[in-house]
Amino acid sequence: MKEKKIEFPTRQDLLDARIRIADMVHNTPVLTSRLINEMTGAQLFFKCENFQRMGAFKMRGASNAILQLSDVQRSAGVVTHSSGNFAQAVSLSARIVGCPALIVMPENAPDVKKSAVRGYGGQIIESASTPQAREEMAKKTLSETHGSFVHPSDDIDVIVGNSTAAQEMIEEIPDLDIIISPVGGGGLLAGTALAASYFSPETDVLGAEPTGADDAFRSLRDGIIHPSIDPDTICDGLRTNLGQWNFPIIRKLVKQIILVDDNKTIEALQLIFERMKMVVEPSSAIVLAAALSNPGVFRQKRIGLIISGGNIDTTILQRIFTT
Amino acid sequence: MKEKKIEFPTRQDLLDARIRIADMVHNTPVLTSRLINEMTGAQLFFKCENFQRMGAFKMRGASNAILQLSDVQRSAGVVTHSSGNFAQAVSLSARIVGCPALIVMPENAPDVKKSAVRGYGGQIIESASTPQAREEMAKKTLSETHGSFVHPSDDIDVIVGNSTAAQEMIEEIPDLDIIISPVGGGGLLAGTALAASYFSPETDVLGAEPTGADDAFRSLRDGIIHPSIDPDTICDGLRTNLGQWNFPIIRKLVKQIILVDDNKTIEALQLIFERMKMVVEPSSAIVLAAALSNPGVFRQKRIGLIISGGNIDTTILQRIFTT
Repeated sequence: MKEKKIEFPTRQDLLDARIRIADMVHNTPVLTSRLINEMTGAQLFFKCENFQRMGAFKMRGASNAILQLSDVQRSAGVVTHSSGNFAQAVSLSARIVGCPALIVMPENAPDVKKSAVRGYGGQIIESASTPQAREEMAKKTLSETHGSFVHPSDDIDVIVGNSTAAQEMIEEIPDLDIIISPVGGGGLLAGTALAASYFSPETDVLGAEPTGADDAFRSLRDGIIHPSIDPDTICDGLRTNLGQWNFPIIRKLVKQIILVDDNKTIEALQLIFERMKMVVEPSSAIVLAAALSNPGVFRQKRIGLIISGGNIDTTILQRIFTT
Repeated sequence: MKEKKIEFPTRQDLLDARIRIADMVHNTPVLTSRLINEMTGAQLFFKCENFQRMGAFKMRGASNAILQLSDVQRSAGVVTHSSGNFAQAVSLSARIVGCPALIVMPENAPDVKKSAVRGYGGQIIESASTPQAREEMAKKTLSETHGSFVHPSDDIDVIVGNSTAAQEMIEEIPDLDIIISPVGGGGLLAGTALAASYFSPETDVLGAEPTGADDAFRSLRDGIIHPSIDPDTICDGLRTNLGQWNFPIIRKLVKQIILVDDNKTIEALQLIFERMKMVVEPSSAIVLAAALSNPGVFRQKRIGLIISGGNIDTTILQRIFTT
């Protein structure tokens, strides 16, 4: 896929988003762990989006996009396709502003995910489970409802909304040497990189990606977007590929993608669980795993870790704690 | 056992403890959950001692006791018997002040608990697993070392140290109608009740106790300390009985003991896990279970919940998340 020429969001765009969504999201805490600092020889700052509303940073991007719809657009509703956190974030954001949320989900999505969406007031539209079927069903829904489509990661308003997590962290914790964000669809990493570029330009932004879903690593290396084919990772939020809006931002502003094996991610998740008493998703624990696996690189550095969410699947939980 | 006539610690004693241990403990955050408030119709404030150093409130009492030892006493070391959080709290506190910690533990205590104590620098002295054997071994150790004994729950300095959690919460969240604390050995409940009596006298203090270990309930009802015989509960921190120092305080200042079935405690633990993304012990989740099980009593009230710790055993975790 070719790289799209896009105009980057401005510093003011990022600041505006923060004010726009202020009543819709929590300013989540930044936590630290003495023991994990000792283990890494670094100073780690955990930006806890697992404590965000609906349990993940996705609330930031979804609310920033939906709040910019006109009244007419809102009355027609918002449409997205997602079986994960973004589906819940759109449902909750839409409910708060009083507009319908139509969520295209694979018919074989787990019941627990469907219930979560319904619990936030979203309406589920089932599709076959291939990406193509999902996109066609979204198009069909859009043409029938004249609703507005919001992409989970490849949408400028979503990216700018996501940037507010790093904005808050940078304000609270100055002089970070590095920020590490997970990279799946690329919306969080792009938003994080934008925030750092405007508000803490000396800070390097790195992405952490599973070895078994290394499309962003390959895309950055080759300068073109590689699709994510047959991803094999416990990080269920990181199986998607970059998109035309976030790739140019990531390519320009992200210093490096660190690949992380799932077993290291599981160890990091257990460490956060046991020592910080926090529930995080594997897709979030990967950022700590990146730091633990590369002690030489990170020693004595001040490192911000974007802990993207805490909505962990029970089956994954069982796998992690029965091994 | 007869009630001992004791002189209650003063308001100034409580304030002094807070200053004394300030560098040894975290002022833990007070968190809330919109969803759990909606479920209960109450405003709940979670005082998160699961985020305390070594993962439990026990650090407060242990450090307050150890910091009052003279240099001569410190050099002889501190002795306690515990296979749980107090063993770790004494080990860590002793290490910080530079004195030996001798921990009498049953020889059949799980390896993970022994490792945790050793990890904080404590020295383990094994005994047979009966309470009598444990106490005899503690006495023997004391006579050999001339060390100082610190009881996990029935020691005035420990009780006063424990009061600092409620002191912090009362300062941060004014006008609480009720504070609920777990009750096992009684040290936390007594400390909480003392703090409320001095700093928020309009606040009622309640204890939450497992139905399968209802010795405190029976003791308060009958006005004498009943021992805990064959306790049967998932709340591994709440199997012990009240003591001569904390019973008079609890009897005078605690309004009621609420009995809670383990299945309600497990549900509350899962709720805290899934919705608040926090790891808590069953012995802590019981306070939320008490509120959830008695909605009529707590509706529209402002309720402080002492979340005592987050050191959950892997076997308990498996039991909770595989059912």
